[in-house]
Amino acid sequence: MAKYVPRVLINGYGVIGKRVADAIAKQEDLSLVGISDVVADWRVKMAQTKRMNIYASLPDRVDEMRKGGIEVSGTLEGLLKGGGVDVVIDCTPAKIGAKNKSLYEKYGVKAVFQGGEKHEVAGVSFVAQRNYEEALGRQFVRVVSCNTTAICRVVGGLHEKLGVSKVRAVIIRRAVDVWESSRVGVMNTVVPELHIPSHHGPDAQTVIPSLNIVTLAAKGSHNLYHLHMAMVEFRSTIGLGDVIDVLEKEPRVVFVNGSDGVEGLNSIFEISRDLGRPRGDLYEIPVWFDSISVSPDGREAYLIWATPNESNVIPENVDAVRAVTELEVRREDSMRKTDRSLDIVKKLY
Amino acid sequence: MAKYVPRVLINGYGVIGKRVADAIAKQEDLSLVGISDVVADWRVKMAQTKRMNIYASLPDRVDEMRKGGIEVSGTLEGLLKGGGVDVVIDCTPAKIGAKNKSLYEKYGVKAVFQGGEKHEVAGVSFVAQRNYEEALGRQFVRVVSCNTTAICRVVGGLHEKLGVSKVRAVIIRRAVDVWESSRVGVMNTVVPELHIPSHHGPDAQTVIPSLNIVTLAAKGSHNLYHLHMAMVEFRSTIGLGDVIDVLEKEPRVVFVNGSDGVEGLNSIFEISRDLGRPRGDLYEIPVWFDSISVSPDGREAYLIWATPNESNVIPENVDAVRAVTELEVRREDSMRKTDRSLDIVKKLY
Amino acid sequence: MAKYVPRVLINGYGVIGKRVADAIAKQEDLSLVGISDVVADWRVKMAQTKRMNIYASLPDRVDEMRKGGIEVSGTLEGLLKGGGVDVVIDCTPAKIGAKNKSLYEKYGVKAVFQGGEKHEVAGVSFVAQRNYEEALGRQFVRVVSCNTTAICRVVGGLHEKLGVSKVRAVIIRRAVDVWESSRVGVMNTVVPELHIPSHHGPDAQTVIPSLNIVTLAAKGSHNLYHLHMAMVEFRSTIGLGDVIDVLEKEPRVVFVNGSDGVEGLNSIFEISRDLGRPRGDLYEIPVWFDSISVSPDGREAYLIWATPNESNVIPENVDAVRAVTELEVRREDSMRKTDRSLDIVKKLY
Amino acid sequence: MAKYVPRVLINGYGVIGKRVADAIAKQEDLSLVGISDVVADWRVKMAQTKRMNIYASLPDRVDEMRKGGIEVSGTLEGLLKGGGVDVVIDCTPAKIGAKNKSLYEKYGVKAVFQGGEKHEVAGVSFVAQRNYEEALGRQFVRVVSCNTTAICRVVGGLHEKLGVSKVRAVIIRRAVDVWESSRVGVMNTVVPELHIPSHHGPDAQTVIPSLNIVTLAAKGSHNLYHLHMAMVEFRSTIGLGDVIDVLEKEPRVVFVNGSDGVEGLNSIFEISRDLGRPRGDLYEIPVWFDSISVSPDGREAYLIWATPNESNVIPENVDAVRAVTELEVRREDSMRKTDRSLDIVKKLY
Repeated sequence: MAKYVPRVLINGYGVIGKRVADAIAKQEDLSLVGISDVVADWRVKMAQTKRMNIYASLPDRVDEMRKGGIEVSGTLEGLLKGGGVDVVIDCTPAKIGAKNKSLYEKYGVKAVFQGGEKHEVAGVSFVAQRNYEEALGRQFVRVVSCNTTAICRVVGGLHEKLGVSKVRAVIIRRAVDVWESSRVGVMNTVVPELHIPSHHGPDAQTVIPSLNIVTLAAKGSHNLYHLHMAMVEFRSTIGLGDVIDVLEKEPRVVFVNGSDGVEGLNSIFEISRDLGRPRGDLYEIPVWFDSISVSPDGREAYLIWATPNESNVIPENVDAVRAVTELEVRREDSMRKTDRSLDIVKKLY
Repeated sequence: MAKYVPRVLINGYGVIGKRVADAIAKQEDLSLVGISDVVADWRVKMAQTKRMNIYASLPDRVDEMRKGGIEVSGTLEGLLKGGGVDVVIDCTPAKIGAKNKSLYEKYGVKAVFQGGEKHEVAGVSFVAQRNYEEALGRQFVRVVSCNTTAICRVVGGLHEKLGVSKVRAVIIRRAVDVWESSRVGVMNTVVPELHIPSHHGPDAQTVIPSLNIVTLAAKGSHNLYHLHMAMVEFRSTIGLGDVIDVLEKEPRVVFVNGSDGVEGLNSIFEISRDLGRPRGDLYEIPVWFDSISVSPDGREAYLIWATPNESNVIPENVDAVRAVTELEVRREDSMRKTDRSLDIVKKLY
Repeated sequence: MAKYVPRVLINGYGVIGKRVADAIAKQEDLSLVGISDVVADWRVKMAQTKRMNIYASLPDRVDEMRKGGIEVSGTLEGLLKGGGVDVVIDCTPAKIGAKNKSLYEKYGVKAVFQGGEKHEVAGVSFVAQRNYEEALGRQFVRVVSCNTTAICRVVGGLHEKLGVSKVRAVIIRRAVDVWESSRVGVMNTVVPELHIPSHHGPDAQTVIPSLNIVTLAAKGSHNLYHLHMAMVEFRSTIGLGDVIDVLEKEPRVVFVNGSDGVEGLNSIFEISRDLGRPRGDLYEIPVWFDSISVSPDGREAYLIWATPNESNVIPENVDAVRAVTELEVRREDSMRKTDRSLDIVKKLY
Repeated sequence: MAKYVPRVLINGYGVIGKRVADAIAKQEDLSLVGISDVVADWRVKMAQTKRMNIYASLPDRVDEMRKGGIEVSGTLEGLLKGGGVDVVIDCTPAKIGAKNKSLYEKYGVKAVFQGGEKHEVAGVSFVAQRNYEEALGRQFVRVVSCNTTAICRVVGGLHEKLGVSKVRAVIIRRAVDVWESSRVGVMNTVVPELHIPSHHGPDAQTVIPSLNIVTLAAKGSHNLYHLHMAMVEFRSTIGLGDVIDVLEKEPRVVFVNGSDGVEGLNSIFEISRDLGRPRGDLYEIPVWFDSISVSPDGREAYLIWATPNESNVIPENVDAVRAVTELEVRREDSMRKTDRSLDIVKKLY
């Protein structure tokens, strides 16, 4: 009897979509059907150079895309109608996924949404190492944003093992992604999010409802990664060693050291490029080991990490496909496959 | 009988020194003797264009400065020896002030140091609206750094009026001053201070010993102002109105509104330039009114402000001179004079 | 008999408009009626703080502006209809001036447009020291952009005195103005203008038709000033001293020296702030003296300057009013008045 | 009889060294002995993670490196003395290579220097597609800087095929490399090179003596690639098609299109990451096809390209080894091997 190999389509070939496409293609138990988009710029042309099948997300874009030099295999709806897809990973811009949902419902395909959509669109917000099982067999699941994923991995681990009473976190966001930084962006400024709490805190609670967290955010004048500074109050007294122990065991969290010359976000970007991964991507959350500290009364820990905004949610998207298709029913089994395929490590150097 | 008009010399004509010089020159009860420096670049040449007396801080620099086109009036030590100075405002780079101290002691002149020096150099760390009286008649006083000054003005006010149990503040620092940003600086990164707490928290305690505060800091990729995000826990329940009331009355603190289009540090810089002040300086701490918020349990307030790193300590330097010379014995009297001379306001627009 | 004092309205209170308003207010022979705009953000509120009369450029904005806290004196059209204005300086965003032209025609008021409008809108493109007389008595004149103004001042001077055969200039543009750099801008990139020649060359020819010039442009990752690098071929052999002589005499052109520590655009911005002018503005074109050089064959000169994009056209706007109203018929007389009122110098330090 | 496989050591494991090491390891006809450095930071630790042999460039650094966690295989001099190396590729910081030369002479090993050294250190300055044969069998050769390499590839090709009479080029340099941009760099400025011509023009002449070229340079506020804008005068009239033809055939030069959405340096960086190469490196010079234009009189062409400063000289280093060892005597044969091993293309997408 033939093995069930879920057929996956990536809708939206942007910063996340192109990375998810490559990651899915690397999975032995998943099959990449192709990608779907609406334009014919260099980004989509590169997908063609890589010999991916390309579909038009909207029927009225077919002509323009063909005119722009893309060999369009058909429309997204035609593909879904034909039954050629088991799971769509929707990587379209924020709020577009919600609009696409009815299409996925119409043809009964499963869909993985991204963090730009509201929790309600999917009903389950997902970080593999926190709540994989919640997504088992669901039609819809939402991989949360890079920032929320990072918080859930790091602070979520501390919460599970040590019991957190309140988290205060400040997020210094990158202003814009590299590819679009020739048009949008900010310049020589910091732009605070004036609504407090920023949406990140409540968003983390969609994954970990018991987490008491408040977040403040500001946009910085850089386009490489977010920086998180967390102040974590515990229910009981803890020691520095407790915090380090938890993070040493937490999957997809790694340590970097200022004493090794890892000075800023740029250093971590350089490390990730040196690792030889595609695009210099970093799937792990690098925590500065030398930043971890505990208040004199032992009730609060402080720590600083970088959130690789372009790539840290890529493994979650892969795991989410296995969860909704029930290809693996235990988080460890899916995560092990994903981590191996993407060379995810616990030690960067 | 002739009125006592303290004669003030500015040692170090850099970012702070040149502003302090201009501010002292505007005071009717103080007299600017001149400035002292060690080089002959365009900065010092501009002092000459403004017809200030220029001294050489080090004897061996006289020739080089003259060769560079500066009319040097003499050496710093010669001037002090001659009894021509009552107060030196030492605006030399960090740690140089400590070295200069023995010179000031030798000639019995009073000195105002800056925040780059350790508290111990002066013994009194100074923010006019918090502890003016502590500096009365002292030989040495230290005006704390821009960041510490801002914290003492804003959080210090809340502490005095409402009783603060713990402050957590994150400082997103400007990387470098404008004038030197053609040489040093960072680029497309954020560089965290890995030692937690950063020095700012303990430094605020040199002014307000009863303040329980922890600070985290990072250097951003911009050169305009620092941004502070503060989380303030109170000893008792407070309301939003309480916080606003305190800040509305606090001197040298003003409100700006995101809803008026004040989006980031750059907006505030533009406002300060529009005010028509020299160099577009801002002496006040602009707090985003729309950022002020209180946690549901009423125990914690959150707020965001900008710290104009080049100029917010200028009025403190003026007040410090009045305090050490006992020209005014009450903080309100000195601050009123300073504020009037520098057009310091409680409402920017 | 009463002296004729032209009444001037500024339509559009943005980066240029607010500076022009302040400059007009400083002219003894001109009268500022007020400003006109369409919003009620902090910028317009500051005009109110400065007690300027504020009009609504569009009738349907009156309510919104009043609701936003602005005391609106009436509409622009109402004001023009009532005959209260002799000259409008139109500082609205690019292309809006062209739309406003019919309004100015309807009420027979003169208008000064900015460089965002096409040459044809006004028929005369204006740089005071090059073609003041062309604008005498005209109803419409266009002050050219900051970049074109700079080229006309520097290269135009060389052309007039030494005879230029071909100019090649590269413009490294600032990406965006300071006030809006919290929203738009570019980040960690350079964005070239792919159409060659860029529009600056042809634009300079609207002022100096005999100038043979080609320009290339790129947007840099900064928001302070443009940088120009010019390669100027002459019809005959010239010497370094010839070039220096011309620029030494050219109005509104000044020298700065790398050997004085003037390293980059930021240094010049710092100098301009130290001059004590409002907003740290610079009306002159600072040419790096040490960059001026001549090819071994004596046929080509090279030089580098900064173009203060926010402020170098301000004096031209003042002069343009005098030209269209024939208040002064000789360029020297108008320029002398303007330069004196704005403290324009030939030596910065 | 055993085939001669030159043994190559990389001295200096920085931005260039680490890339050259990886490139050498990919060559079937070359053998990587290891790398040599002087510190024990994360960069060198990553070489260890990649299982490279690590030597100490200076004997007195052995202890410190071992203390820092590096398994040091010995000293550079020990290795050379033992006869284990045929060619050293010296990627140490500028001017250090010149100091190392006597060591290479002492042990009779060949050496490839980088563009930070003067031409005289090696006597031959090298760009494979221009003068490969000049380096055949030499003991020393110098791979010129990224900027010079780019000029030689693009303008050198036009010169060879079409005959260039004068080149004027403006270089907007990246301020600093990514890895060190947390410490040095510039901020919100452009810093011009005041000495004209900048060193790039004369440097190109060390490779192509017959090229008449003048260059001007400025440092921009970005750390990704340099941007070149070239104005190329020809000895005779040429057409747009001629220029395009030459560049279409020129090795290691590719086209990108603004009309495909390739807007700035950032777009090209994103393309290079999408190509899947290690570190997102780009070995080719991407010329904006839509920027290529010709003056009305047909005597001058204009074009704009990006110079990938971290990686475009990597293939030249590989070719230089083959040239000095005479492993290949024809440029085409070496370049074909290098290009195939590094996936160098003539079409990016």
